[in-house]
Amino acid sequence: MVKMSLKLYCDLMSQPSRTLYILLKAIKCDFEPKYVDLRKGEHYSEEFTTQVNRMQRVPVIDHNGFFLTESVAIVKYLAREKIIPESLYPMDSKQQARVDEFLEWHHIGLRLHCSMYFRVKHMDPILFGRKTTEKQLAAYEGRMLQALDDFDKKWLGQGTEFIVGNSVTVADLFAATELEQPRMAGYDPKEHYPAIATWAKKVQAHFNPHYDEAHVILNKIVKKQQSAKL
Amino acid sequence: MVKMSLKLYCDLMSQPSRTLYILLKAIKCDFEPKYVDLRKGEHYSEEFTTQVNRMQRVPVIDHNGFFLTESVAIVKYLAREKIIPESLYPMDSKQQARVDEFLEWHHIGLRLHCSMYFRVKHMDPILFGRKTTEKQLAAYEGRMLQALDDFDKKWLGQGTEFIVGNSVTVADLFAATELEQPRMAGYDPKEHYPAIATWAKKVQAHFNPHYDEAHVILNKIVKKQQSAKL
Repeated sequence: MVKMSLKLYCDLMSQPSRTLYILLKAIKCDFEPKYVDLRKGEHYSEEFTTQVNRMQRVPVIDHNGFFLTESVAIVKYLAREKIIPESLYPMDSKQQARVDEFLEWHHIGLRLHCSMYFRVKHMDPILFGRKTTEKQLAAYEGRMLQALDDFDKKWLGQGTEFIVGNSVTVADLFAATELEQPRMAGYDPKEHYPAIATWAKKVQAHFNPHYDEAHVILNKIVKKQQSAKL
Repeated sequence: MVKMSLKLYCDLMSQPSRTLYILLKAIKCDFEPKYVDLRKGEHYSEEFTTQVNRMQRVPVIDHNGFFLTESVAIVKYLAREKIIPESLYPMDSKQQARVDEFLEWHHIGLRLHCSMYFRVKHMDPILFGRKTTEKQLAAYEGRMLQALDDFDKKWLGQGTEFIVGNSVTVADLFAATELEQPRMAGYDPKEHYPAIATWAKKVQAHFNPHYDEAHVILNKIVKKQQSAKL
């Protein structure tokens, strides 16, 4: 029998990279992480662009020679290949539709605004020495707060313990890793939204120790930012 | 036997609404369109918000009482329910992954930038009397052109006739309806990207007469804009 080979091209500074990394660790999948340092621009290299992902992004999987990009598409594929269990990505048509509904919403509904705030406030000054005006930053922050409010009230505040029903699914992990990102820019959603705080703790506990392991560098950056402020 | 009931809440001014409308018409599905006039703000009504979609958006389906939002999630659900045929949404795991890969990319990769250009240049002045500065508009246009360039070269320019392989899939329809939107703001991608022009004609032909029918109002707006300019 040919051994299954699964490689994950990732950078733990990227939210969907962390989602896949934590997921694969949590289900005890025998995969090989291939680290791509985004801050060094390794995703722009000739080799990465031609051999791994022409879109120059992570995460990417190489499953027995089949290269696939886009984290949500990867999760669905790995579920069909029986690598991700039904408990985390339901096979029941209506239950799966509810998870998909969140995953499709989250791109522009949640991810965009959390990552733009992080990028404009934290990354752009470091990478390009570019400073956004107070007014522009307030607009980015406003959009993020609206997104967090939608998430807090319209997805979490619906009487269930998790995004879809009362057990954790991939939807929760995708959302949780996104909400870690603005912490590096000094904003922690858990400090402002009690429903998010309660839910986030449960997601973290479910996926630990892998959740914390994937966030070691991120948490170091958050700590450094906090000490610099004191 | 209980008759299958499928209602589609839509506004043909919305790209994903058109995608689902065209798709259901093309496969001769017996569905009931329920028009929601976005320009009149009908999606903000108490009734729509509490009974159809708390996110106040279209499209939404009501399939025998099961309400589902998010066009991509809807297509996947209807494929599992055997309403959308395998030819348009493949069941083969790797083929399906390729279609999903595009659908997940397109939210922020293509849709966001085409619709923001449309919104800022065409809708905001009409709805809110808000005019964007030339500089801001140029930034929105720049992001749209980058997205179109990616689509033209990295998705279409890969040696196949359609986005995934040599036959049309839902991915093509999702992309085509998005590219119609900036035409209302005076920019037609087909006039600037030959690969897009060739491909778009084939997608339109495949889904006609329904494609043109769904674009009647949009095409009238484009014509009116053009005459106003002369």
